[in-house]
Amino acid sequence: MDRRSFLKTSALGGTAAAATTLAAPAYAQGKRTLTMVTTWPRGLAGVWDSVERVVKNVSDITDGQITIDPKGAGELVGAFEVFDAVTSGQADMYHGADYYFTGQHPAFAYFTAVPFGMSAPEMMTWYYGADGKALHHNLGEVFGLKSYLAGQTGAQGGGWFRKEINTAEDFNGLKFRMPGLGGQALSKLGASVQVLPGGEIYQALSSGALDGTEWIGPWSDEKLGLQEVCDHYYPAGFHEPGAALSVATNLELFEGLTPAQQRAIEVSCADAHQHNYSLFVASNGPALQRLKSGGTQIHEFSGEIWDAFGKASAEVLQGFTDDDLFKEIHESAQKSMRESGEWLALSEGKYATERNRVLAAMDN
Amino acid sequence: MDRRSFLKTSALGGTAAAATTLAAPAYAQGKRTLTMVTTWPRGLAGVWDSVERVVKNVSDITDGQITIDPKGAGELVGAFEVFDAVTSGQADMYHGADYYFTGQHPAFAYFTAVPFGMSAPEMMTWYYGADGKALHHNLGEVFGLKSYLAGQTGAQGGGWFRKEINTAEDFNGLKFRMPGLGGQALSKLGASVQVLPGGEIYQALSSGALDGTEWIGPWSDEKLGLQEVCDHYYPAGFHEPGAALSVATNLELFEGLTPAQQRAIEVSCADAHQHNYSLFVASNGPALQRLKSGGTQIHEFSGEIWDAFGKASAEVLQGFTDDDLFKEIHESAQKSMRESGEWLALSEGKYATERNRVLAAMDN
Repeated sequence: MDRRSFLKTSALGGTAAAATTLAAPAYAQGKRTLTMVTTWPRGLAGVWDSVERVVKNVSDITDGQITIDPKGAGELVGAFEVFDAVTSGQADMYHGADYYFTGQHPAFAYFTAVPFGMSAPEMMTWYYGADGKALHHNLGEVFGLKSYLAGQTGAQGGGWFRKEINTAEDFNGLKFRMPGLGGQALSKLGASVQVLPGGEIYQALSSGALDGTEWIGPWSDEKLGLQEVCDHYYPAGFHEPGAALSVATNLELFEGLTPAQQRAIEVSCADAHQHNYSLFVASNGPALQRLKSGGTQIHEFSGEIWDAFGKASAEVLQGFTDDDLFKEIHESAQKSMRESGEWLALSEGKYATERNRVLAAMDN
Repeated sequence: MDRRSFLKTSALGGTAAAATTLAAPAYAQGKRTLTMVTTWPRGLAGVWDSVERVVKNVSDITDGQITIDPKGAGELVGAFEVFDAVTSGQADMYHGADYYFTGQHPAFAYFTAVPFGMSAPEMMTWYYGADGKALHHNLGEVFGLKSYLAGQTGAQGGGWFRKEINTAEDFNGLKFRMPGLGGQALSKLGASVQVLPGGEIYQALSSGALDGTEWIGPWSDEKLGLQEVCDHYYPAGFHEPGAALSVATNLELFEGLTPAQQRAIEVSCADAHQHNYSLFVASNGPALQRLKSGGTQIHEFSGEIWDAFGKASAEVLQGFTDDDLFKEIHESAQKSMRESGEWLALSEGKYATERNRVLAAMDN
């Protein structure tokens, strides 16, 4: 994913006249409608499901006392104006990927994904079982937001290539699409990093303007037709190992809600996080099988390439640690990731590897 | 975990006089208190946190319209009487591990864990992203229950051994504690399978009455002191790769609730599932590090042993497929597991393995 793709693919990308078209919250018979602006084109598969899950949860469990009116990017404000719209009170809440707001504060990256960071189960562990959620609140409150995770794409694939990648040196000069901090890391390997929007990727690969690209995962990538223009797919990537989505509510508004309404939003968002991860994984599995059946060749990066990814990612993250709040969040996340990551790899990770191998042999 | 350990460690194990001590649901000022019986000793670390999460969620988001009064095993009915208590309407809901109720129907095993079955992320995928939840409802409704997952221990460890296990043959004659379908599978390898309750394991290992045991995971196992009587720990096991916990409500009662209250229970349980998994993983990581620092030797089973686990597990599960509902649930779960399992292993599984390796080298 990236910023520009959603800007460009949304019907209206700009901020002009946004404020004048925003209505104040509606009150009728004690009921309240909250306007939710989003960073997504309305209906975008996967992420819009997460928007709808939050909307339905809140409406259902408050018995209609709170309804949420979700707006696609550009319907009220542009995709990347949602942060300012909510902090200023023009809109009530946003649904988006917090790493779009690293311009406001670099630590927002940790609440979507950072290169060489946490997988989705590790993110859950840090967020719901350790300090992640409290730190998200601390960061949001600096800007007048109450922030909760509310969606999760799971691991984003390593990407599509027109030729096999055998060494870290093969990235040198490679024209590869990868936005964000992952792209910054990849450029340290000599890649010519591009940030084309989703709608332009297929053509750029066809024409040779790009040598490869990442997008989201098999389900979403297949919709873009990437298997038609690249033969080689690397499921494991370093740049967004588990990408979370967030809902942030204007803090003053949030604090004016009843405790029951506040908890309804919290629990609705947590449910949407788990539900969305499940939807993406359930959809990526069959899509991967279709891609393989269609002739896509599946590869893994070599250990030497992973070494290079790790070194470059650490350099990128280290560049922000002069900010105290970034440093606090970075150190909390890295500590939790190392602790949970070891247990998960040795238990369910090892188990899944062996089980998959044994079942493949038994099924054949 | 197993049935008998909770029966024996609970204050009151029996069913005698249970019905007479159960109060009817309390109604006051439109408010309602539901009695929740559980299969757990009150306060049992980890699983009782899941009970409390559900209780708090429901009370908070219904603004106190529904409160839940949770009872430890033996306080109203014994641990394994909770199923009958709720289906008969003596109690309103239970919190437990559904595989305790395979006597009522073998398919309940799939809503906790089956040997060689799903990890926690795969369980989420099947339950929330595919057909799992609908099948859980179908199964529960046969018995007059509305069932939801509401907790998750994550992977249960392969277990503790007084001597290293190098081949499948080493299980032959081994006195090993493992309850349930996993134990049935292990007995096919020639193990002398024991089902001692938790409180008796330490002594049995000390005296040589046991050669080894599984329990839950590093966090819980450390509390039992297993590291004091066994030197060898295998984090990855086949018997409960991701153990879910459930809340089941009396169906007639559930259908009498308002739609908002029904959804409040559903979303509260889903939140508790994710939250509980996160708590277990967040606690297991540091516990594993303490065990290693204390001298516990960490091992992996060989590929040949995993082959034997897989063959034995398949035989055990196949033994129930003459039941149509079991067969439907079995086939749905196995299909989802294979689809999601491949994607998860190739993406976040491969990623985590390489990242852990690279970070360990960089950190040293």
